[in-house]
Amino acid sequence: MDEAGFIAALRGLATDPAARGLADDAAVLGDLVFTHDMIVEGVHFLPGDPPGDVAWKLLAVNLSDLAAKGATPIGCLIGYPLGDGAWDHGFVAGLGEALAAFGVALLGGDTVRHQGPRSLGLTAIGRAPIAPSRSGAQPGDRLWVTGRIGAAGIGLELARTGRDGPELAAYRRPQPRLAEGRLLAPIVHAMMDVSDGLLIDAARMAAASGLGVAIALDLVPVCGDPLGAVTAGDDYELLFALPDGIDPPVAATAIGRFAAGAGLTLSDHGRAVPLPDRLGWSH
Amino acid sequence: MDEAGFIAALRGLATDPAARGLADDAAVLGDLVFTHDMIVEGVHFLPGDPPGDVAWKLLAVNLSDLAAKGATPIGCLIGYPLGDGAWDHGFVAGLGEALAAFGVALLGGDTVRHQGPRSLGLTAIGRAPIAPSRSGAQPGDRLWVTGRIGAAGIGLELARTGRDGPELAAYRRPQPRLAEGRLLAPIVHAMMDVSDGLLIDAARMAAASGLGVAIALDLVPVCGDPLGAVTAGDDYELLFALPDGIDPPVAATAIGRFAAGAGLTLSDHGRAVPLPDRLGWSH
Repeated sequence: MDEAGFIAALRGLATDPAARGLADDAAVLGDLVFTHDMIVEGVHFLPGDPPGDVAWKLLAVNLSDLAAKGATPIGCLIGYPLGDGAWDHGFVAGLGEALAAFGVALLGGDTVRHQGPRSLGLTAIGRAPIAPSRSGAQPGDRLWVTGRIGAAGIGLELARTGRDGPELAAYRRPQPRLAEGRLLAPIVHAMMDVSDGLLIDAARMAAASGLGVAIALDLVPVCGDPLGAVTAGDDYELLFALPDGIDPPVAATAIGRFAAGAGLTLSDHGRAVPLPDRLGWSH
Repeated sequence: MDEAGFIAALRGLATDPAARGLADDAAVLGDLVFTHDMIVEGVHFLPGDPPGDVAWKLLAVNLSDLAAKGATPIGCLIGYPLGDGAWDHGFVAGLGEALAAFGVALLGGDTVRHQGPRSLGLTAIGRAPIAPSRSGAQPGDRLWVTGRIGAAGIGLELARTGRDGPELAAYRRPQPRLAEGRLLAPIVHAMMDVSDGLLIDAARMAAASGLGVAIALDLVPVCGDPLGAVTAGDDYELLFALPDGIDPPVAATAIGRFAAGAGLTLSDHGRAVPLPDRLGWSH
């Protein structure tokens, strides 16, 4: 059984509508929203990343899933591999900062002895009166994105090469778009967070909606090289579909349009651009 | 920072009353109950345990926490380390059996690449109209336990030594006492599950309640050697405090009594028995 087979088998078990076929950012049960994301040393963070920043990121990536469903966080439970005293101390300090910054209660969790690369899990729980899916985009909808894309990717390169710069914070201490998510949820046709890269995530929204999507690269607000930015991950901005003619109630940029069909197409100032080989991260 | 220091620091962050000071089996927020327990290869299960049984156990140990709070399970989210195709296949098959057996919905989760010993996490969510704590025992309350203690400990020894026997199932496929927990929750003063050993868990209930507890070893329904049974773990029975004179509405045995003071005392047919050096598992 390969990874795709395993996920398919899990989907076969996740028959409750609340699970949304394991194809959305989070599970939605009544007004409750649940998500559980893990981050692994060497995959989702660098061994040299400060432990307080790892704690922040662990909480932030889960809260970003809640933001994508318009949810207000209630609390979280953590699964933590204990090991190195100094690392653990830094982690718990950063966790405290992140919980306070986002107003989230630590409700519980478990600690185990750490062996091998660290693997950290967190379950975040929120409430949302209306939780949009990522599969509801309609033909003619415009595709919007909050913020600016690519800073985290530049930050990752700085971290990898031991350099400093303002983009390090975007990589290490992402800011989930909770307030924006709450405002957008009641009016969007579809919403998700940009975690693996703008192009791959937009392609996923289009596929989930049974549509194609065209993105104008020149309209995407980017940091650095545009193609690099739209294929970098970890931005944790919100990507959403709105009917043509409706402007979002938050700062955001229209970058594309959904249409009948399938797949992702890219243009730059009206000229077709070939898709890069890699649309983003596929862990 | 050592493990105790880390847990103390986490408790300092878990100030929301719903967290119950991270000192209960689960978090309780309104009528919602949340728990997150991990199991680690070589610590909570043996590398040779069948993967389907590991899946069963991962779900069961979390549902046992819900049972201890009188909760009916709603669903779960899983954190899974992908790696070995045959193992993963066996795991997902066992997970399907366990979800069906307990009527629990798989709502979500995350998969990561597996490196080193497997570490699996699961968050279980339930609802309970009344969720007793483990800290509410009163002086004069009798201490009760469901079922029989020690079978899982014998099963672990069988598994360790590659032998077969009926107790293997108690170790590998524990049955959380969900129905009993629901019936008991409205009437008990305190309740918890027996996961680390009857003696250590009873001592924890007494300490949480600010009391002492005396246990009559000869009254404890055991499999095998009594002292071995009451210090073995993994039984997932329910341990609860009821006012003297009230009989529980489920099959259970009165094995002790709470009194003002502190600590655990043990007797056998009325004669004091010294406490064993090890009261149970302390991971």
